[in-house]
Amino acid sequence: MTTAIILAAGKSTRMGAKADKAFLSLIGKPVVAWSLMAFERTPEIDKIVLVVRKDQLDASKAVVKMFGISKIQAIVQGGTRRQDSVLAGIAACDLDTKHIVIHDGARPLVTPELISEVVAAVKKSGAVTVGRPMIDTVKKCAKAAIVSETVDRDKLWLVQTPQAFLLKDLRAAYKNVDGEITDDCKAIEDNGGTVKIVQSLKPNFKITTIEDFELVSKIMK
Amino acid sequence: MTTAIILAAGKSTRMGAKADKAFLSLIGKPVVAWSLMAFERTPEIDKIVLVVRKDQLDASKAVVKMFGISKIQAIVQGGTRRQDSVLAGIAACDLDTKHIVIHDGARPLVTPELISEVVAAVKKSGAVTVGRPMIDTVKKCAKAAIVSETVDRDKLWLVQTPQAFLLKDLRAAYKNVDGEITDDCKAIEDNGGTVKIVQSLKPNFKITTIEDFELVSKIMK
Repeated sequence: MTTAIILAAGKSTRMGAKADKAFLSLIGKPVVAWSLMAFERTPEIDKIVLVVRKDQLDASKAVVKMFGISKIQAIVQGGTRRQDSVLAGIAACDLDTKHIVIHDGARPLVTPELISEVVAAVKKSGAVTVGRPMIDTVKKCAKAAIVSETVDRDKLWLVQTPQAFLLKDLRAAYKNVDGEITDDCKAIEDNGGTVKIVQSLKPNFKITTIEDFELVSKIMK
Repeated sequence: MTTAIILAAGKSTRMGAKADKAFLSLIGKPVVAWSLMAFERTPEIDKIVLVVRKDQLDASKAVVKMFGISKIQAIVQGGTRRQDSVLAGIAACDLDTKHIVIHDGARPLVTPELISEVVAAVKKSGAVTVGRPMIDTVKKCAKAAIVSETVDRDKLWLVQTPQAFLLKDLRAAYKNVDGEITDDCKAIEDNGGTVKIVQSLKPNFKITTIEDFELVSKIMK
């Protein structure tokens, strides 16, 4: 069994204190509904666990019903840090789950084709993430917005979600996580695992600012 | 005097051998025409030098005429490496040029507002680039698409163009460049200069693949 965990419990601090980006209306549907629909339509996905903030539990039930998300396994409350939300999602998975696919609810451009590709890759390689080679120049700024170093972008990749793992590997990796991490592959890497990148050049932006929201709206129209 | 150098001599290797991305038709106009029009409309820009491949010199003259680019100072032939094209552009600048603004012709989403902001910043700070904080996770792959390391993205910025400098500083910096560089700020940094980032969250993609071309088309429509 393959279960998807969709994370929509983020704080959206960059969009203003009151905004909950996962539930903003994007071309007439809540941002998170687009990801739910993409996973619903992917044949390789059996179950979906949705992780949200406590105050969105009721709204989430309504969204799941309204958009006919029949694969929903559970809607659970997330934590303060990303990893707390992932662990809450893992705890709610069906016990028969072998592979787990984790996706940021704030990346509504994900497609069933991409999810299928990720599931095929995890079955082959054991731990995978979607990513693309770095195009822009990368600078490090020690002080705010003052360049202290140009980072060699050769061999650098930008990685996104979905990411997918063997559930047993991710569970084992999280047992050894110390401190905060913002990406599940990192847990696997730190635990000695190998992560493969599934290259995707199509837009798959994470909505973190109003500008991103406007950009994604334009792309979806 | 402030002169813009627009670079459109790139090889477009990622779009197939025959494609010249700067001259592909994007919503009815060549890609590079969008940048030319943005610089033409920016009051703070006095002159424009366009750098193209030898086989595009005639087409470029036609583009400049067709889109009424009255600020054109010269259309010159670029070199194999980005830095050769920059040096060709510098050599063609009006002698009264104090500030220079360098822009990738493959970034057609640039706006007069952003260019004005960059010119104001260079007049204050001496060396500037447009950029945004890193949102996606960054991985290093020693072997193709196998993650070898997660790069700490804290303090990392993605930088783009326009970039702007005092012409005398850029000239001095390029005298000390040894080997290939793909970003003009790097020349300034290596020469002891300080580069400031002008934050811009609006889309400003560089067209390097067919997927990027489709993305930018959607945004512009």
